[in-house]
Amino acid sequence: MADDVVVALDVGGTGIKCALVDSAGRVRHGERHPTAPQRGPDAVVTTILDLSADLADTAGRTGLRPRAVGVVVPGIVDEASGVAVWSANVGFRDVPLRELVGKRLGVPAALGHDVRAGGLAEARLGAGRGYRHVLVVPIGTGIAAAHVVDGQVFTGAHGAAGELGHIVVRPGGPPCGCGLRGCLEAVASAAAVARRYAERAEDAAGADRVAALAASGDPVAAAVWHEAIDALADGLLTGLALFDPEALVVGGGLAEAGDALLDPLGRALRARLTFHREPALFRAALGDGAGVLGAALIAQDALNRECA
Amino acid sequence: MADDVVVALDVGGTGIKCALVDSAGRVRHGERHPTAPQRGPDAVVTTILDLSADLADTAGRTGLRPRAVGVVVPGIVDEASGVAVWSANVGFRDVPLRELVGKRLGVPAALGHDVRAGGLAEARLGAGRGYRHVLVVPIGTGIAAAHVVDGQVFTGAHGAAGELGHIVVRPGGPPCGCGLRGCLEAVASAAAVARRYAERAEDAAGADRVAALAASGDPVAAAVWHEAIDALADGLLTGLALFDPEALVVGGGLAEAGDALLDPLGRALRARLTFHREPALFRAALGDGAGVLGAALIAQDALNRECA
Repeated sequence: MADDVVVALDVGGTGIKCALVDSAGRVRHGERHPTAPQRGPDAVVTTILDLSADLADTAGRTGLRPRAVGVVVPGIVDEASGVAVWSANVGFRDVPLRELVGKRLGVPAALGHDVRAGGLAEARLGAGRGYRHVLVVPIGTGIAAAHVVDGQVFTGAHGAAGELGHIVVRPGGPPCGCGLRGCLEAVASAAAVARRYAERAEDAAGADRVAALAASGDPVAAAVWHEAIDALADGLLTGLALFDPEALVVGGGLAEAGDALLDPLGRALRARLTFHREPALFRAALGDGAGVLGAALIAQDALNRECA
Repeated sequence: MADDVVVALDVGGTGIKCALVDSAGRVRHGERHPTAPQRGPDAVVTTILDLSADLADTAGRTGLRPRAVGVVVPGIVDEASGVAVWSANVGFRDVPLRELVGKRLGVPAALGHDVRAGGLAEARLGAGRGYRHVLVVPIGTGIAAAHVVDGQVFTGAHGAAGELGHIVVRPGGPPCGCGLRGCLEAVASAAAVARRYAERAEDAAGADRVAALAASGDPVAAAVWHEAIDALADGLLTGLALFDPEALVVGGGLAEAGDALLDPLGRALRARLTFHREPALFRAALGDGAGVLGAALIAQDALNRECA
């Protein structure tokens, strides 16, 4: 129905993106609110429930029918049971968010993982549209991957699949927050690029500026940028060997560099292919709206299952 | 039905394992025949079709009803279209085996990939029985992986998923047959263990004897064996980060070493876990009969789809 919408929330460490999305994937209404996690997890849960109810009211007032609700959160999420198992930056521990938000709104509900839901949106509605096997790799503070086949994303047995940022590409390399050394994330995340540049240049610059400096001939920036691209090519090659996707979608902060990332990354990846089939390589199309669209998609899926 | 069976063939470079398997997964009749690939791919196809027909006749003569047929082959297999795309050791190039064997027998047919089908059998009937998310890793001449979720195995977009043997665990390490350097397979396959021992000891020994020599204190064998185990732990850790399985099943020639492999491998893997959830670690249970049981399972699945 054109007037049916789902209520969608993407809960991050800083902000909560909210939307009413119709069944064609169009955002009919959008809002942003602070998460303020320092208030503690109970307060954040209350905010999520209140915002969901407000959005449903907004829908009703504007002639839209809220038919389902989807919430995505970071950390470890058990999609099957609808529980936010653990999230450092929001403070959740075993919060049954799906049940809570479904009860509050009285409609079918879904809980998802922010990266996997964003990947689902990129695969179904964004850069991966039209492909059946898509690997979506957001490269920001961390690096993760969502493996989407036929519009479904893999969660793994414990909701922890797709940790592409923590495959070791440089044995004995720089320490990673996870406790290992030489993880892809420790060399090639946007945060790692900025940190590695700061260490060597004794100057601060975000990953986008490091890319620009590298393009303008700065040797330190060029070294940091190309080390990141080489590591990404090595990590993505492992992704190709294991997942064999048709399309590879690169997003997150590092992809803001655009062709300065995609062109050399595509070349580095092609240079490494042996038996691997070359996937189509794209920059993510949905930007930081992917998560909330993913929340809408899992809500829509929950509604479809209910109606089936 | 107790008297319904499927015709199952596992075609390898050396031999063809054949079986009649009932719906409970019991082998009611088994045969082995030479592949003789030097005769050329057309002759091998004729042998496969003739053997399938003979097996169906054998079933009929012994009061069994052949309801479907499943064939698994090595190389690159497009399960969706039923085509053996490429197989070096059998000589196939774009052979529509599913259609050929289905027509010959007049029953539903399935074509599968030997490693993925063997992994499916281990997950459903073997060591992974009772687990929903299973990663099956045969370690023989090469190393591969079958990722099985809810009894279905992932093929990838081009039938090339699961190439765990070709993730680079030792950058700049020994050359691999695939053209890269430092692939897991180049350090830790049964063939690599034998080759690396021969290079250093100037003496020939299979991987199982290298394991025995390592256990008895031979320093060269111990070095080769532990390098293989360390590389396996590194490669499997990447598998855990990306797939997040509940159960990890290790098979193939190297697993013949039993606890001499599983005990140190489990320790090495546990020592590397950080955020990863520890999976149950098992030795494969079906031995070299996994492939033909997998052929039976995909035949049974094809029959179930036909009857649905």
